[in-house]
Amino acid sequence: MSNSNPAVVLLSGGLDSATVLAIARAEGFACHALSFRYGQRHASELRAARRVARSLGAVAHRVAGIDLRVFGGSALTSSDLAVPKHDAVEEIGGGIPVTYVPARNTIFLSFALAYAEVLGAFDIFLGVNALDYSGYPDCRPEYIAAYENMASLATKAAVEGGRRLRIHAPLLHMSKARIIERGLALGVDYALTLSCYDPTPSGATCGHCDSCLLRAKGFQELGLADPARR
Amino acid sequence: MSNSNPAVVLLSGGLDSATVLAIARAEGFACHALSFRYGQRHASELRAARRVARSLGAVAHRVAGIDLRVFGGSALTSSDLAVPKHDAVEEIGGGIPVTYVPARNTIFLSFALAYAEVLGAFDIFLGVNALDYSGYPDCRPEYIAAYENMASLATKAAVEGGRRLRIHAPLLHMSKARIIERGLALGVDYALTLSCYDPTPSGATCGHCDSCLLRAKGFQELGLADPARR
Repeated sequence: MSNSNPAVVLLSGGLDSATVLAIARAEGFACHALSFRYGQRHASELRAARRVARSLGAVAHRVAGIDLRVFGGSALTSSDLAVPKHDAVEEIGGGIPVTYVPARNTIFLSFALAYAEVLGAFDIFLGVNALDYSGYPDCRPEYIAAYENMASLATKAAVEGGRRLRIHAPLLHMSKARIIERGLALGVDYALTLSCYDPTPSGATCGHCDSCLLRAKGFQELGLADPARR
Repeated sequence: MSNSNPAVVLLSGGLDSATVLAIARAEGFACHALSFRYGQRHASELRAARRVARSLGAVAHRVAGIDLRVFGGSALTSSDLAVPKHDAVEEIGGGIPVTYVPARNTIFLSFALAYAEVLGAFDIFLGVNALDYSGYPDCRPEYIAAYENMASLATKAAVEGGRRLRIHAPLLHMSKARIIERGLALGVDYALTLSCYDPTPSGATCGHCDSCLLRAKGFQELGLADPARR
């Protein structure tokens, strides 16, 4: 895998972004993984991202520090809001959940764009999904298309080189079971990933947040056990 | 000035963003100023932003910490690249200068979007200028329009409320002299601002970077002395 076909892959360390990294690599990209230290309640997410980047052959992995707590407003970054817990997927409510972080994907993609510009890359991979996260405005196809359009006007490389920037969201329309199937075929070890919104400091999952439940249901549909750490 | 008409104003502490803050306030917005600690060579820029926010009646001023140095690639954030110095405006070269920070406006606007979402604001003010900074891709009108389109699809408030987000760039087509004229009419004290790319630690200007030269020329055209600290 040479560095002549570089791509930036946003990597949280969860199931979705690990699968996206495997897909980008299978498509022949030299993958530069990018994670964020953004005031998550626990650093176990970043440890998972490091494990995943290493195991799936990313050529680099950078962690950018950003302060999303300065604005508050989400259960994922504020200690005042509790992460909602349920016993089954069916209990997950509609609408935009409190785990939504304001403008998070917009901010993450903007850093990916900066990294892409420095690398001379024109491809950014992102693990958004419009089925499971229909309540998140920044997980919708029309948002991704509008971001790509803006990004193609935003950078020196895009303007001087006349090349469009591409935002790849290969999971956009896939069910969790199909995502897992695809990842397993590409050799993803899901035991290394961490999808939980509210893990213990040591990285064990809560088993009851929206993310844990959606993931467990995906494995269940395939007749497999979720290797997530309990 | 009530908080019922909130706006986010990106404030660097330079001449342009100070003028934009004065314009936003004159238009009746309750202005929430937003600055960044992004690995600038000197913190004097943030001190200028604080002075300006206070003097122009911002209802709040937040500083978000972000790490743009993780990617390198600009004379403004990298200690390996020198800020270019000249003796006259005419010596400023064409093309994209080394003082360009990759995706900077995209990143700054993304944080402004998060802040706007938390505040319930639909207006963001930005001091970009397409005349003086024609070499910067993210200072062009088509970029601002594309960003506004993306932002209107990106947030909970925009989706649920059905309201478009507006990116105001009131200086986009104004010369430096006109910007200064407008700001003086609105009571901006330009002695409080700092526009230099390479100030001393105490906040004195270099007088020879692109930004210092463009600013000096603006005052000169109006037959005024630049009150910048030397």
